[in-house]
Amino acid sequence: MSQRWKCLCAYDGAGFAGWQSQAGGSAIQDRIEARLAEVLETPTRIHASGRTDAGVHARGQVFHFDAAWRHAPAKLLAALRLGLPPSIQIRSIRAVGSDFHARFSAKGKIYTYDLHRGDADPFQRPYCWPVFRPLDLGAMAAAAARLRGRHDFRAFSAGHGASSGDTVRDLRRLDLACRGRRMRITAEADGFLYKMVRSLVGAIVAVGEGRLAVAQLGDMLTAKARLPRVETAPPQGLFLQRVLY
Amino acid sequence: MSQRWKCLCAYDGAGFAGWQSQAGGSAIQDRIEARLAEVLETPTRIHASGRTDAGVHARGQVFHFDAAWRHAPAKLLAALRLGLPPSIQIRSIRAVGSDFHARFSAKGKIYTYDLHRGDADPFQRPYCWPVFRPLDLGAMAAAAARLRGRHDFRAFSAGHGASSGDTVRDLRRLDLACRGRRMRITAEADGFLYKMVRSLVGAIVAVGEGRLAVAQLGDMLTAKARLPRVETAPPQGLFLQRVLY
Repeated sequence: MSQRWKCLCAYDGAGFAGWQSQAGGSAIQDRIEARLAEVLETPTRIHASGRTDAGVHARGQVFHFDAAWRHAPAKLLAALRLGLPPSIQIRSIRAVGSDFHARFSAKGKIYTYDLHRGDADPFQRPYCWPVFRPLDLGAMAAAAARLRGRHDFRAFSAGHGASSGDTVRDLRRLDLACRGRRMRITAEADGFLYKMVRSLVGAIVAVGEGRLAVAQLGDMLTAKARLPRVETAPPQGLFLQRVLY
Repeated sequence: MSQRWKCLCAYDGAGFAGWQSQAGGSAIQDRIEARLAEVLETPTRIHASGRTDAGVHARGQVFHFDAAWRHAPAKLLAALRLGLPPSIQIRSIRAVGSDFHARFSAKGKIYTYDLHRGDADPFQRPYCWPVFRPLDLGAMAAAAARLRGRHDFRAFSAGHGASSGDTVRDLRRLDLACRGRRMRITAEADGFLYKMVRSLVGAIVAVGEGRLAVAQLGDMLTAKARLPRVETAPPQGLFLQRVLY
């Protein structure tokens, strides 16, 4: 009898063409589905909480799939882990009700974005955005405070999905934490638009560098249009931290 | 007029065939020398404190070279940095007297080795050795204490250099520190034999797993011969932390 399984996984996105299945099989989804097909001896589609772009990492991506498995869940976990590269880690697996859906059951998500003031060492470099211009931390905190809350974030999105549909999101949390030259921005919302976190980070950095005023963030929210001086932060600093159910 | 320069650098060893120059140009030394030749417009040989093996990392490798440079040292640093991959970072550069030699002036070295009890996440995995069998931390601390001090470490070396020459070293420090499931072994000595740190770590882990008794470490030191159950720990957990002058 088929059973629904909920999986928690982490991955280093550097070597992959993002989460979503690609023709060449170079996506994270492709690698996991290929391993799952070996373990279950049948092609099995997995459904994630959402895609992550090429180069974006995850500490807590969630996906589900349906499979008949007669042994203990721990054996399924061990079998899956065995055939995956070290850059993809299945953290846990458990049986859930058939009404659970990794995407539609999600009540929110938490992302983190790591910045580094000045050059980062080779071990942090693949996981952060080094910013070389001086940053005004007070202004960045004010920028984050201005962006928090329920807004139409159309100006803080990019490409597909931004021009159509509902672009109002409740950004419950947008915090900055500093530790030496490292800076982490944590964002929590009921959902995120395409490239929204990286756009928010780009805007906060533009304010920190003095290229954009906090008031202009409000203008962008109202006009639902982006100012060209706001860049999209590069993917390698972004981590999908947790999916909330 | 030519001047001697002392350079501090860090690197992620994963993508390189070790420090020492290789025919194919795939060593860290090759990459730095290639960039230096571009900056100085003349082939320039660099001399490190010692080689590191393929896959071994460094936070504080030191090398020197001689070059005529008419501009500020900061400009040499910036020029060198510009053309190197993110996995190699020149941390600092300064003019030194011509009697300084990165290898022969060194008074000692500090290495760290990172273990992980059980599976590590994809972000720690390239920088540690995951050990899946249970570890007796008390026994490991006793093993480290037994190995500390001035000994003939011939049994804790491998391959070339081990069978000839002076194999007595003063292992001033060999400590274990735990933080959650992470464990760091720090080793400081006046010098290290080929693969000595990884052999010491392999022996400590063998004791921790109960495959080797602490007393057998003493037997190995006395007999100057290695027991086959002592493996050489894999390279990716090892970092050259600091060279002491």
